[in-house]
Amino acid sequence: MNHLLTIEWVPERKGKIVPGFIRAVDQTRLPAELVFLEIRTVADLRSAIKTLQIRGAPAIGVAAAFGLVLAAQESKSTGVAGMLADVMRAAVNLASSRPTAVNLFWALERMKKKAAGANNLPAEEFKRKLALEAVAIFEEDRKICRLIGEHGLELLKGKKSVLTHCNAGGLATSQYGTALAPIYLAHEKKRPLHVFVDETRPLLQGARLTAWELTQAGIDATLICDNMAALVMKEGRVDLVIVGADRVAANGDSANKIGTYGLAVLAKAHKVPFVVCAPTSTFDLKTSSGEKIPIEQRGREEITTMAGKQIAPEKIKVYCPAFDVTPASYISAIVCENGVCRPPYEKSLRRACGAKI
Amino acid sequence: MNHLLTIEWVPERKGKIVPGFIRAVDQTRLPAELVFLEIRTVADLRSAIKTLQIRGAPAIGVAAAFGLVLAAQESKSTGVAGMLADVMRAAVNLASSRPTAVNLFWALERMKKKAAGANNLPAEEFKRKLALEAVAIFEEDRKICRLIGEHGLELLKGKKSVLTHCNAGGLATSQYGTALAPIYLAHEKKRPLHVFVDETRPLLQGARLTAWELTQAGIDATLICDNMAALVMKEGRVDLVIVGADRVAANGDSANKIGTYGLAVLAKAHKVPFVVCAPTSTFDLKTSSGEKIPIEQRGREEITTMAGKQIAPEKIKVYCPAFDVTPASYISAIVCENGVCRPPYEKSLRRACGAKI
Repeated sequence: MNHLLTIEWVPERKGKIVPGFIRAVDQTRLPAELVFLEIRTVADLRSAIKTLQIRGAPAIGVAAAFGLVLAAQESKSTGVAGMLADVMRAAVNLASSRPTAVNLFWALERMKKKAAGANNLPAEEFKRKLALEAVAIFEEDRKICRLIGEHGLELLKGKKSVLTHCNAGGLATSQYGTALAPIYLAHEKKRPLHVFVDETRPLLQGARLTAWELTQAGIDATLICDNMAALVMKEGRVDLVIVGADRVAANGDSANKIGTYGLAVLAKAHKVPFVVCAPTSTFDLKTSSGEKIPIEQRGREEITTMAGKQIAPEKIKVYCPAFDVTPASYISAIVCENGVCRPPYEKSLRRACGAKI
Repeated sequence: MNHLLTIEWVPERKGKIVPGFIRAVDQTRLPAELVFLEIRTVADLRSAIKTLQIRGAPAIGVAAAFGLVLAAQESKSTGVAGMLADVMRAAVNLASSRPTAVNLFWALERMKKKAAGANNLPAEEFKRKLALEAVAIFEEDRKICRLIGEHGLELLKGKKSVLTHCNAGGLATSQYGTALAPIYLAHEKKRPLHVFVDETRPLLQGARLTAWELTQAGIDATLICDNMAALVMKEGRVDLVIVGADRVAANGDSANKIGTYGLAVLAKAHKVPFVVCAPTSTFDLKTSSGEKIPIEQRGREEITTMAGKQIAPEKIKVYCPAFDVTPASYISAIVCENGVCRPPYEKSLRRACGAKI
C-alpha cells in the first residue's frame, strides 16, 4: 500500500485550518523524481490540472475543492458577499480546466452549495467552513477508495493475473486508488496476484505512475505496451481487466483514458471479465448515455514529441483524444463504495447512488 | 511515391559489380535525420539488422543477400573453396540476427544455392555471380512490391480511409513497400485516400517511418497512438486495415509487428476488412501454423527508455515481444505479387507460390 499522500491541504499554522495551501505530487516528474508542488492560487491550480501535474478523476475533484478555499483566501474582498462572488468565479474557471472527469464538477457543486449556505457568516468563519468541507471531501475520498477495494476484492477471488490501464491508483486519488484499491487490499492480505500494466500512450501514466506505485508497494507487476494487451490475453495470462473511470453515464457507459474501449473489446473477444472501479461521484446520472459525454482533445505534441525530442515528422496530422467511452455492454461490473453494480446498470447505478456511504 | 532507395548495392568502381558495399538508410535516425550507412563487413551488417538500422522483412532479405557478397569479398581465402566456406559461415551468422522474418532465411538459402553452384568458377567470377544474384533479389523485390500494389489496389475500391500499423512501406523494402504499395498506387492514380498511421510502440516505426514516408509523398495521413485504433474504428472512420507480414504460415496465420493481432480482433469486432500484404518469399509453407513461428523478444530498455530518458521505474518487470501472430480466421485477404489469396489459405497460398512471377 502506497502511504504517500498525492494531494493534501496544509494549514500555514498549526491548529488553524485556514489560511493554508495545497501540497501535491507533481505527476509529470515521476518516476524520475518525487517532487511536491505547493499551490497557493487558483491560477496555479488551474495550470497544474491542465498540464496534468495533478491528474486522476478523484484527485482532480479533491484539488478543485481545495481550490475554492484558495479562491476565498486570495479574494480582495473583506466582506463575505464579495468573497462568495470570487469563489463562484473560481468555480467557473476551474470547471473549464478539463471537460471529461465529472468528479471535478461534482466537487465544485458541493463546495458552491456549502459556500452559498455560509454567506451570512463572518469572513474568517466562511473560509473555515469551506476548508472543512474540502477536507471532508478529501477524507471521504480516502474512505471511499478503501470501500471500493473491499467490494472489488470479491471479484479478484480465484484470479491470478489482472491487467490495468492508465493510473487509477493512489496517485489518481487521495490514497488507495480505485482500480488499484482491490489490488492493494489483495496484497495486504498476502494473496498472490500479478498485474500487467499498460504503459498508456501518449502520456505513459501506466509506465510512469502505475508501474512506480506497484513497484513501491512490492506488488508483482509487468509493464507492457498498450498494443501487447491482446497478445497477453490470447496467451491466457489475463484473468480480469480492471480500470478506473472519469465519468459513468446513467446506462453504465464509461469514459476512461483512451485505449480503455479497445481493451474492453479485446477482453470480450477473449472472454475475460472487464471491471470498472469508480466512486459514485463519478456516476453522472443526468447523462443518459456515453454518446453525450464530452471528450477532451489534447495537443499534437503529446504524440509527436517525447522527452522534448521530435518522434514524428512535423507536418503529420494528429488525432489525440484523451478519453474514449466503453459501452456498458462490454462491462461485467462497476464497483463503487456502495458495492458491486451489475447490468442492467440503469437500475444498479441509481440504487448505488441512493445508498448511504 | 517514395523514390528514395532504402537499400542498394554500390560498386566501388563503375562498370564492375564487385567489389562493392551496401548503402542503406539508417532507420533509427528518422524522422529527425536522413542518414545513409555504408556497410562493408558482415559484422557491421549483422549489427545494423540487430539494432534495426535496417528493418522490414523484405529489406532484411535483400540486406542478407548483399551480406553474402560482402562475406566473399572479405574472405581471406584466395581459392573459391575457402571463400565458399566463409560465405556459408556468414549465412549462419546472419540467420541468427533476427528469428521471425522468414525473408531473411529465404534470401540466404537462395544465395547459398547460387554460391554452391558456382564453386568451380574462378574467385572473381564466383564473387560476381553472387553479386548478380543479390542484385536480382533486390530488383525482383522492387517489381514484386509494384505487383502487390496493383493487386491490392482492387481491394481499396470504394474505400476512403485505411489504417496501417508499423512500417510496411518503401523503407521496409527496396522501394514501394508491401502494405503501402496499394496506397502509393492509389495516390499515383489520384484516388483520394486517407491513412490512419498507428505510431507502433515501442520503436515507433509508424510515427517515425510510415508518417515520414506518407508525408514525403503528399498522402493524407493522420498519426494516432496504437490504443486509439479501436476508437477510430468505432467512429466509422476506418474502411480497411492493411498491414505487412514477417512470416505467413501455410494455413495463413501471419506474424507481424506486435499489435497487429489486437488490430485484427478490433477490425473483426467492427466489421472492418483486415488485409495482409506480403511477397511469396514471406510465405513459409513448411510451417503449418502460427503457433510454430518463433517470436523474437526484445530488450527491456525498448519499453523503459525513450530518447535516452527513463520513462518507467528501473525495477519494473517488462514483457517485450517484437511480433504477434494473427490467426488466419481474422484475415480477409493476403495479397502477394501473384494475386489476392482468399481463405482457405492452405490452398490459395500454395497456388500463389506455384505461379510464375
